[in-house]
Amino acid sequence: MTAANLLDDTTIVAIATPPGRGGIGIVRLSGPSAIAIAQELLPSLKTETRRTAQYAILHDEAGARVDDAIVTLFQSPHSYTGEDVVEIATHGSPIVLDWLVRACVHHGAQPARPGEFTERAFLRGRLDLTGAEAVRDLIDAQTLGQAKLAAQQMGGSIAAEVRPTKEALVALIATLEAGIDFAEDDLDTLPAAEIEARIAAIEPALQALLASFAHGRLMREGLRLAIVGRPNAGKSSLFNRLVQQDRAIVTATPGTTRDVISEHISINGVPVELLDTAGLRETDDEAERQGVARSRRAIADADAVLLILDASTPTEKDPALNELLRDRPVLEVHNKIDLLTRDISASNEAVAHTQRLPVRTSATTGEGIARLREAILTIARGEASTHSSGATLTNLRQREAVDRALQALQRARTAANGTPHEMLLLDLYESLRALDELTGQTTADDVLNLIFSSFCIGK
Amino acid sequence: MTAANLLDDTTIVAIATPPGRGGIGIVRLSGPSAIAIAQELLPSLKTETRRTAQYAILHDEAGARVDDAIVTLFQSPHSYTGEDVVEIATHGSPIVLDWLVRACVHHGAQPARPGEFTERAFLRGRLDLTGAEAVRDLIDAQTLGQAKLAAQQMGGSIAAEVRPTKEALVALIATLEAGIDFAEDDLDTLPAAEIEARIAAIEPALQALLASFAHGRLMREGLRLAIVGRPNAGKSSLFNRLVQQDRAIVTATPGTTRDVISEHISINGVPVELLDTAGLRETDDEAERQGVARSRRAIADADAVLLILDASTPTEKDPALNELLRDRPVLEVHNKIDLLTRDISASNEAVAHTQRLPVRTSATTGEGIARLREAILTIARGEASTHSSGATLTNLRQREAVDRALQALQRARTAANGTPHEMLLLDLYESLRALDELTGQTTADDVLNLIFSSFCIGK
Repeated sequence: MTAANLLDDTTIVAIATPPGRGGIGIVRLSGPSAIAIAQELLPSLKTETRRTAQYAILHDEAGARVDDAIVTLFQSPHSYTGEDVVEIATHGSPIVLDWLVRACVHHGAQPARPGEFTERAFLRGRLDLTGAEAVRDLIDAQTLGQAKLAAQQMGGSIAAEVRPTKEALVALIATLEAGIDFAEDDLDTLPAAEIEARIAAIEPALQALLASFAHGRLMREGLRLAIVGRPNAGKSSLFNRLVQQDRAIVTATPGTTRDVISEHISINGVPVELLDTAGLRETDDEAERQGVARSRRAIADADAVLLILDASTPTEKDPALNELLRDRPVLEVHNKIDLLTRDISASNEAVAHTQRLPVRTSATTGEGIARLREAILTIARGEASTHSSGATLTNLRQREAVDRALQALQRARTAANGTPHEMLLLDLYESLRALDELTGQTTADDVLNLIFSSFCIGK
Repeated sequence: MTAANLLDDTTIVAIATPPGRGGIGIVRLSGPSAIAIAQELLPSLKTETRRTAQYAILHDEAGARVDDAIVTLFQSPHSYTGEDVVEIATHGSPIVLDWLVRACVHHGAQPARPGEFTERAFLRGRLDLTGAEAVRDLIDAQTLGQAKLAAQQMGGSIAAEVRPTKEALVALIATLEAGIDFAEDDLDTLPAAEIEARIAAIEPALQALLASFAHGRLMREGLRLAIVGRPNAGKSSLFNRLVQQDRAIVTATPGTTRDVISEHISINGVPVELLDTAGLRETDDEAERQGVARSRRAIADADAVLLILDASTPTEKDPALNELLRDRPVLEVHNKIDLLTRDISASNEAVAHTQRLPVRTSATTGEGIARLREAILTIARGEASTHSSGATLTNLRQREAVDRALQALQRARTAANGTPHEMLLLDLYESLRALDELTGQTTADDVLNLIFSSFCIGK
């Protein structure tokens, strides 16, 4: 079933603004009856006046005033969904907005499913599928960096990046298809070497896109960082330093309760969750022992570890800690450099958790904190090089589609010499289909349902 | 200081939609630089196009896309505040909205105080003070009835009701003032009887307005109702019946935690908080004893009590309960009438808590529940008769102003015979001033600050 089959002629309605109270709330209608339904509620509405804010008073069926409204009509196809759209802005009262939605339903509208406005925009060709996903990511963004990445993708950056690849692929397929008709003459239209060369020319763009996923995932999912160290190494002071400078706006969705103190910060737009752990040492005190156990769990959960050492005091080796941090990305921080009379940190015994150079900081004076933020970003990026400003894949669905397209291409290239073109074409079509799925030209209904059900209602 | 002194030439900015994530979020600018600031952010904006939704792309200073926007300009005085207003609608992402406000501040806007948009609308004469209060009440409404009452008041119902009274008062004052000039001739312009008659003609409108407060307060503050009775009388079933039919939309503001189960319902638009209490009886069980203590507190806190009796079982007198309910508004409910073979409830011994007729219900079959809702409304209204659709005072500030106006009038009327007109005029001016304060023609700054600080930011 193609996407267009999913379109119907219903008119949907939902509250488009966030839930709760505020100055302004908006109810949005979309569909062929949107304007007629609005007119039932607001008889004074001038329906020929498009895109213009009109003042009107909302009355209930008994004629009692319920609220004032500013109404704007958008005519198909010049609207968010591509359908006729009416936006009714009232005061931000949940009671009034709820009443208004029910009044619209009474006059024939259907309550919108989560993401249904954006789904309609997608089905009407106003957005490709990666753009639709970006709308959700933009709304869910926790840092400005995430929002910008989503805005770029919403503008069609992935579709634009993939377009030349698809054109080259379609041209190759067309040439091969044309050749099939002459197959009985045992005469290939295209020599194997040229097929290989043309496929090889297509691959780098997809490889670059695939490589962008490391950055995209980091931006989307962020980094969870455990701060670890012995008591009095300055963990909490460093934690506060980082939080103070970089406190991110915390998501409105309540998080899960943690056993350790955690804060969300944003470093150059990358969302970072900092986990402050109890000091790590063997102890007989039951409460402290539980704290140490929680620290161990935090280390296991984290993507990377900040190991804080006191640069002003020689530290003995700690085999248990070494064992705990083995095979984990660790960034070593030598703190309290303000207390140094001579540099003993270089000879610090507890090192060797990592090949990375330690970062030298003072939580007290703030020295080295900028370097520490840089180093955290380097860890966050892992092996992925700094990403250019091109298109960025941000979720597994996108990555999987590009990966599948690339693998099919590689299969075709390796088999080009000696394989009948009918067989090669199977792989080339598979590659094309994967790219079509990426941008939503062909997508199974259940995939669409899955994507749009993760939206909020009213979008 | 008069209201107009409070106006300044700053441009304010705030997020106008509720906090949190949603499809659409709006940032609103108001003031002389509103359009210029919007143009700094959106160079493509057509500033001569008013009230028309324009599509534009928001970029950060480095040129990176942050979001798409729909922008509408409203030119002074044809806007909510009466000033130049710009509404920038983006996706409902807190991160984007927060960035947008900061960008506006960067270009010279000031973050708006709570209620500052509505305060400006008031200061520019777009709303009277009772209308401004109604905007807040509308946004805070928990039932549709409250919203409608607020919408009516927002439309100027109180100001309209008071206007003829003020005109008559001003005319009387003018006549007396004119007469003062002839006072030396010892000749009163107006005989005392006519002064008394003219004041007496003014008073009824204010008395009616004053009487509307009982209804207004009920609608605004609602009714707290404790459900009380012996174990197994059917308290919880009745509670569930009422909640099931009438569950109100619960306020987004977290309530205080109660020791008893409470639910907010709406009966004909009146917000009612139901408190379900533990059974009342002497007991040795410590847990149950605590439950009984909590029930007593709930009864003390409630505006009225629903006393549930089992109609199918004769109940003995309960002196402790009688003592508890003395001097409280009590509505007696005879429940379980479905179990009655003969009507023994009339001879029920536990009655006599109230002069009201008991309501006969069955929580099991639903019989009598509609009557119970009616009876609750009757209790809620107390001595106040059912209110007509005229203007309604909804808060103490309004009530106090009308009360003061009325008392000053009455003083003048009683003293009319034999008091020099200069003295009478003092009372008449006091009455006029109270009415001016009601609608905000003259209001002390601190009163205005108090009123508008109870608004949400962005309104």
